[in-house]
Amino acid sequence: MAGIPGTLPPQGAIAVIFVALRTGADDAGYGKAAERMDALAATQPGYLGIDSVRDANGLGITVSYWADEASALGWKANAEHAAVRELGRARWYAQYRLIVSTVGRAYGWSVKN
Amino acid sequence: MAGIPGTLPPQGAIAVIFVALRTGADDAGYGKAAERMDALAATQPGYLGIDSVRDANGLGITVSYWADEASALGWKANAEHAAVRELGRARWYAQYRLIVSTVGRAYGWSVKN
Repeated sequence: MAGIPGTLPPQGAIAVIFVALRTGADDAGYGKAAERMDALAATQPGYLGIDSVRDANGLGITVSYWADEASALGWKANAEHAAVRELGRARWYAQYRLIVSTVGRAYGWSVKN
Repeated sequence: MAGIPGTLPPQGAIAVIFVALRTGADDAGYGKAAERMDALAATQPGYLGIDSVRDANGLGITVSYWADEASALGWKANAEHAAVRELGRARWYAQYRLIVSTVGRAYGWSVKN
């Protein structure tokens, strides 16, 4: 089920919460870059998964999960990711905030079939 | 700017990440309950803010921020909130996950005007 992976991040994992408001400019370029970043993140050491939602008004929340602080910082240091962040600030984002947190506990639930 | 409050959660704050996929049933009832829960949460002790996005396919991420573990648990224990969670499982949600994390650091950015 897209957006809700089957596995929950374990205690001590890093959750990087990215809340962004888009400018609305260059939507096609943004969509392509976002897809590429999702695929690239998934190849990084310590990647555990991602939850991402964007609405029609350009507000989005992406939460990426990492095994530990080192792997979260490794993703931040990825050169292609860093270049795309620069593009984001120059072109796509009006405003964002980034919150780095440590998972204490996690629960999943799904309706009975 | 809706969805991106001006203040960032401080180190040690609790971020409760709620990722949910809707069934699509009773959309009007859901919208009303969601608004009521946002307003009710804001009256709780230790409430710091909320980020929430839902897309057209029924996938949503809500992150609520709390001063400490006690205030996050106080919100969980709120009777009206607990009753609405029951309704959510009975009616609105196909699947969700809830991740409770502790803020390590936070950054904000906005485009220069």
